[in-house]
Amino acid sequence: MEQYQWIEGGICAPQGFSAAGVHCGIRHNHSKLDLGLIKADVRCAGAACYTTNKVYGAPITVDRQHLADGYAQAIVVNSGNANTCAPNGVQLAQDVCKLTAQALGIAAEDVLPASTGVIGQAMELTPFEAGVPAAAAKLAATPAGSHDAATAIMTTDTHPKEAAVELVLDGKPCRIGAIAKGSGMIHPNMATMLLFMTTDAAVSPEVLQQALSGVVPATFNQISVDGDTSTNDTVLLLASGHAGNTPLQPGTPDYDTFVAGLTAIAERLCRELAGDGEGATKLLECIVTGAPDLLTARAVSKSVIHSTLFKAAMFGEDANWGRVLCAIGYTPGDFSIDHVSVRLKSAAGEVFVCENAAYHPYSEEEAAKVLKEPEIQILVDLGAGDATAKAWGCDLTYDYVKINGDYRT
Amino acid sequence: MEQYQWIEGGICAPQGFSAAGVHCGIRHNHSKLDLGLIKADVRCAGAACYTTNKVYGAPITVDRQHLADGYAQAIVVNSGNANTCAPNGVQLAQDVCKLTAQALGIAAEDVLPASTGVIGQAMELTPFEAGVPAAAAKLAATPAGSHDAATAIMTTDTHPKEAAVELVLDGKPCRIGAIAKGSGMIHPNMATMLLFMTTDAAVSPEVLQQALSGVVPATFNQISVDGDTSTNDTVLLLASGHAGNTPLQPGTPDYDTFVAGLTAIAERLCRELAGDGEGATKLLECIVTGAPDLLTARAVSKSVIHSTLFKAAMFGEDANWGRVLCAIGYTPGDFSIDHVSVRLKSAAGEVFVCENAAYHPYSEEEAAKVLKEPEIQILVDLGAGDATAKAWGCDLTYDYVKINGDYRT
Repeated sequence: MEQYQWIEGGICAPQGFSAAGVHCGIRHNHSKLDLGLIKADVRCAGAACYTTNKVYGAPITVDRQHLADGYAQAIVVNSGNANTCAPNGVQLAQDVCKLTAQALGIAAEDVLPASTGVIGQAMELTPFEAGVPAAAAKLAATPAGSHDAATAIMTTDTHPKEAAVELVLDGKPCRIGAIAKGSGMIHPNMATMLLFMTTDAAVSPEVLQQALSGVVPATFNQISVDGDTSTNDTVLLLASGHAGNTPLQPGTPDYDTFVAGLTAIAERLCRELAGDGEGATKLLECIVTGAPDLLTARAVSKSVIHSTLFKAAMFGEDANWGRVLCAIGYTPGDFSIDHVSVRLKSAAGEVFVCENAAYHPYSEEEAAKVLKEPEIQILVDLGAGDATAKAWGCDLTYDYVKINGDYRT
Repeated sequence: MEQYQWIEGGICAPQGFSAAGVHCGIRHNHSKLDLGLIKADVRCAGAACYTTNKVYGAPITVDRQHLADGYAQAIVVNSGNANTCAPNGVQLAQDVCKLTAQALGIAAEDVLPASTGVIGQAMELTPFEAGVPAAAAKLAATPAGSHDAATAIMTTDTHPKEAAVELVLDGKPCRIGAIAKGSGMIHPNMATMLLFMTTDAAVSPEVLQQALSGVVPATFNQISVDGDTSTNDTVLLLASGHAGNTPLQPGTPDYDTFVAGLTAIAERLCRELAGDGEGATKLLECIVTGAPDLLTARAVSKSVIHSTLFKAAMFGEDANWGRVLCAIGYTPGDFSIDHVSVRLKSAAGEVFVCENAAYHPYSEEEAAKVLKEPEIQILVDLGAGDATAKAWGCDLTYDYVKINGDYRT
């Protein structure tokens, strides 16, 4: 039996969390929600991971300040403008926190801001002045607004992304919920990846950060749509403690169960983010086995789903496995490629295309059938150890070029 | 005055070298030359640089063996098949060397093989059995066949690439000539970059290698079409010594003159390779100044021209400088971005788009005019030191996706 089960409710599934999304005018299209709000009924233990880009959004500066004490109570997020390389960005993010604090009746230092959209354009406070109170009112009236919040953070995404699981900790039911967005500039990327998670588990800020920091390298850091690491990537996780379990401690079965739940949500959202990559027609999942060590397994799997040439071949439904070998070969690190095997798999079957780094006889007809499917697995066995890893990407299509050749207009 | 002047003749410009190209049947299109031959009339000092991909072409294994003594006399190269991850690849490359040695009356150990094309398909010796003698006969009859040899190595390239300079060493006229190919899988990349150079300078193998190894990191390693490092990248340089100069020694003005000539040819071919990138409509040249050190300058310039999002924006003629900042920011290394400025320049003018990592007011109309041109310079000043570097790339277009979605058919 799995340690967790999938449930509905998204980011509002755990006890204590409400959410809403409204249109406040940052985006010109009036039918597009552009401001999301997530609120906890108590101060929560908080954990976060941010982009490693040296150019980073002003909200990230403020998040670091506001999470310095380990606690937070609300997240306020807009799409349509990344508030990055923009004049007075930090001041503006702080002002948005103040507006949010006033509207929710909490402290400004307990509000975490986030932004996604175009880089380098000035953002105005005006839309927030009306939008934040409107979002707060909507949240009070209809608290279970996970879907609207998930919709408000979309940029080039084609659909909102939510997930939630229930697990048992210390004999008590406990939930983890999440919403995410990200479609281009994903390597975990102009749009940006944003992920917000909530849980009602009881857990200290330090342990929560440890759990999150353990899950992110194996999941979100293993997605690539275009190789461009965003300036605004942010993962935020808030824990209300309402589940009433004994606070989680590393090394216990309950901690492992919690991490399994976090990982399950993270992997599911990775598949959704990659599959909804800008212009994508196919989700690519590369599963590496037989690697000498974990870092090599992760690097090889990410290298394959990141290869521009291989991504274009997948769009063309061409079993061009030489491009898989090429991408494996330029992965940094010192490992042998002599025993590499490659299989391509989908709902339509599996073809064995490469054995010991050389051609393995297969039917092009069979391969074409496998590659017609919308989800393709690339199974790489390095034959050099026990380590495994997964990475998620998508094909490179005419629509990616179209979307990004003309993003601002 | 420049230390060199541009001349005609390509790889046959230096004294002692002849070349030819023929169709031998590796490629199905009968009008496409697919076998090139370059011959020196004496054994030459030789130098080489190869791909760093752990998966590499069988010809590279043989080149390493045949250049172990520092000398070679001929290069035999085919397009249409990379002889990589192919059964019996090394044996086949050796057999092609034997055929070439017989046809030219030289030692098989003095022949350097090279291949470019699809990875992972078996290559047959049959086409070479008739093709190599035919190329040798053509070379004897019309020795100045640089253009045919340059044409024979093309894959998705749209035009052959040749260059030659004349310089004066030790009071004596000396020449350097080259041919190159490469259009996709360029970081320095399915097709592959191949570059062959000849010179009549007198120089030992060790000094020749030192000169080549100094030039490659600043030139060919600074090109990117798609971020995929080829399995077959090869640069070969042969020196006949016919110029009669005192053999070159590092630290002398003549050595510097020779390196300046090599660099000039390398930069020119870098521009041609990047500008002829698969599907490209624009050449992008990123010039970084004010970097704290050379490696940072190189990494930043390469990061910009490698950004998928920025390349798509250039196709769209969109001055989306936020994507330049994003690519600068995720460049590995520890450097400050606080004083970054960015200018976009072409034959139509220059626009100053970013100052101190933030928006600098400019006219979108003016920017659109600048970006309409086929060659765009991205001028990045890091404001943090004296180091400079250049990198070359191209825009990402619908045609790139088309070419690579269906390369094998």
